[in-house]
Amino acid sequence: MTSPLAAAIARQYGTPAVVIDLDIVERNIDRLQQACDVAGLRNRPHIKTHKSPVLAALQRDRGARGITCQKLGEAEVMAAAGLDDILISYNLIGEEKMQRLGRLLRTGVTVRPCCDNPVAADGYVDAARLAGRELEVLVECDTGRERAGVETPAEAIALARRIAGHDGLRFGGLLLYAPEDRQAESQRFLDEVKAGLRENGLEAGIVSTGGTPNLRNLGRIEGATEHRSGTSIFNDRMMMACGHATLEDCALAVYATVVSRAGPDRGILDSGSKTLTSDTGGGLDGHGLIREYPKARIKGFAEEHGMLDLSACDPKPGIGETVSIIPNHVCVVVNMVDELVTVRGGEITGTLPVAARGKLR
Amino acid sequence: MTSPLAAAIARQYGTPAVVIDLDIVERNIDRLQQACDVAGLRNRPHIKTHKSPVLAALQRDRGARGITCQKLGEAEVMAAAGLDDILISYNLIGEEKMQRLGRLLRTGVTVRPCCDNPVAADGYVDAARLAGRELEVLVECDTGRERAGVETPAEAIALARRIAGHDGLRFGGLLLYAPEDRQAESQRFLDEVKAGLRENGLEAGIVSTGGTPNLRNLGRIEGATEHRSGTSIFNDRMMMACGHATLEDCALAVYATVVSRAGPDRGILDSGSKTLTSDTGGGLDGHGLIREYPKARIKGFAEEHGMLDLSACDPKPGIGETVSIIPNHVCVVVNMVDELVTVRGGEITGTLPVAARGKLR
Repeated sequence: MTSPLAAAIARQYGTPAVVIDLDIVERNIDRLQQACDVAGLRNRPHIKTHKSPVLAALQRDRGARGITCQKLGEAEVMAAAGLDDILISYNLIGEEKMQRLGRLLRTGVTVRPCCDNPVAADGYVDAARLAGRELEVLVECDTGRERAGVETPAEAIALARRIAGHDGLRFGGLLLYAPEDRQAESQRFLDEVKAGLRENGLEAGIVSTGGTPNLRNLGRIEGATEHRSGTSIFNDRMMMACGHATLEDCALAVYATVVSRAGPDRGILDSGSKTLTSDTGGGLDGHGLIREYPKARIKGFAEEHGMLDLSACDPKPGIGETVSIIPNHVCVVVNMVDELVTVRGGEITGTLPVAARGKLR
Repeated sequence: MTSPLAAAIARQYGTPAVVIDLDIVERNIDRLQQACDVAGLRNRPHIKTHKSPVLAALQRDRGARGITCQKLGEAEVMAAAGLDDILISYNLIGEEKMQRLGRLLRTGVTVRPCCDNPVAADGYVDAARLAGRELEVLVECDTGRERAGVETPAEAIALARRIAGHDGLRFGGLLLYAPEDRQAESQRFLDEVKAGLRENGLEAGIVSTGGTPNLRNLGRIEGATEHRSGTSIFNDRMMMACGHATLEDCALAVYATVVSRAGPDRGILDSGSKTLTSDTGGGLDGHGLIREYPKARIKGFAEEHGMLDLSACDPKPGIGETVSIIPNHVCVVVNMVDELVTVRGGEITGTLPVAARGKLR
């Protein structure tokens, strides 16, 4: 049966609708802040998850110091809305990016980008020159995740020196995104870099660690100054799978309606890969958790169809019923929609624009 | 080396940028039109792929008769831009949808929705009443794809009778989306339904077939009146894999820049799952084809990182190089962006808004 809230959402906005519970959002924000406070780290939340200046301001007002963005376009949206002290945890490369970074810096906002290679490091000189002010640049270090980042302490030290040697640039510190099970290795990497920096008269003002799953390791990397967590504001099936969250900690759900029961053990939701996305959440079974029917399996997608296997599900949802789905990976789902419907105390309170949605450049 | 066009795109718009070649687009439109003309079928292209009223109008002006939408929100955008004769190949369910459908019908535009169940069929009565005019409704039939659609001819006939029995509704015909290898079975299903309809004094004015891979079967379903093809306007790796397209037929590419060479055999593109999407294209190897480096494998994604395995690739792309990627599944990639960059004769001509992007309701 459709819950009263689901019915209200379907009536007022239609489905599919991406909905956040502000009570849970605030609890999640406070939990992250407390974890950082206890560990003695600055909380620099990653806005890639919510892409909303309103929620970023809420995080700031509840204790966060600065924010993290992944793309320059996200930083532009956040800065225009009054957010300051922005870390861009990404290699920004190319003339067009440097012009925009220069313009952003000229507004007076503090933005620190990062790099893991000389091309990116050298390019930042142009942005600083265009801005007419000094630019702090961090060095991204890979301590085993095999994403971006220099792979050795020697490369990190060389890159820091290169930055420091450029007119208009200052070496701002180190960016880590350590695998959850490689804290000791990451510590050794960091210690070696810091020793090398000292030998060269340099210092890492910022040592930024990252990841919501790494919140359980908070405080274990000695010398860290801040932490970046994105997903913890909403949580999702991935965060449940890694032990960070329970179902009650999940603030975002996709409300969807069963539009077909094609076959007795099959059903179709009005949400497919253009809403829930094909992100498997690192290999989770099924494409989301239906809260009202946890034994229903979202087994596949067309673009606008979510294919349900209802064979293990009794009772089964009927046609016209609206259900709520915890997505596998919340960050990519938020990025599909222009607005989030907001709920508090079980009542709809309005909508929130996803102002930085699709800011992929 | 970055091509002159890629350099121009990177300079003018930045990367990642989703780019369409209008010369190829027009060739693809004409090829579809000719195939339908030869088969004696109306061409009713599916706009889910491009979500652009400008391109829908181009299809119409080159011979298409009507368009197909998957969601009501897409139909609203298209109708507002002057497109008429819209088939919505989807079960629309719920009060909010019926109010919007009623409003859309009141503008005078021809819209035909479909259904595969009595709940949807009955609901359309409200839309017709709100519109103050008759509404034609099609019955969706499943001939083996196991998506939406009634599973037996008897159900199709019963549903057609139910529609015809409702005040304000008229049975408009049948919607098929036959598996490519089940043409004979689909023909038998259709013949049985048509015989049953005749016995009940009903007729399927429209018999709509669908799918770009099914273009090779065009004309094989006797009694079909029209065909819906979406992906053929742009094509992608899926369409190459199924034999519909060659690389030269792919009109859309994601232009992305190599922002890191973290490790000698690794690279990182500035396009991750928030641009190229996690859609595997039905199990293709890798997440896209880099035209300039076909042996580079896009092996995985973070949200804004495309992870390259360059081990089989010689030479390898350098940091700062902009490449062009044919995505696995073009329809979901277009849906990620607000605009497409347009190119003709190798020169940038401007941008095209993806006006129906994110119209998931």
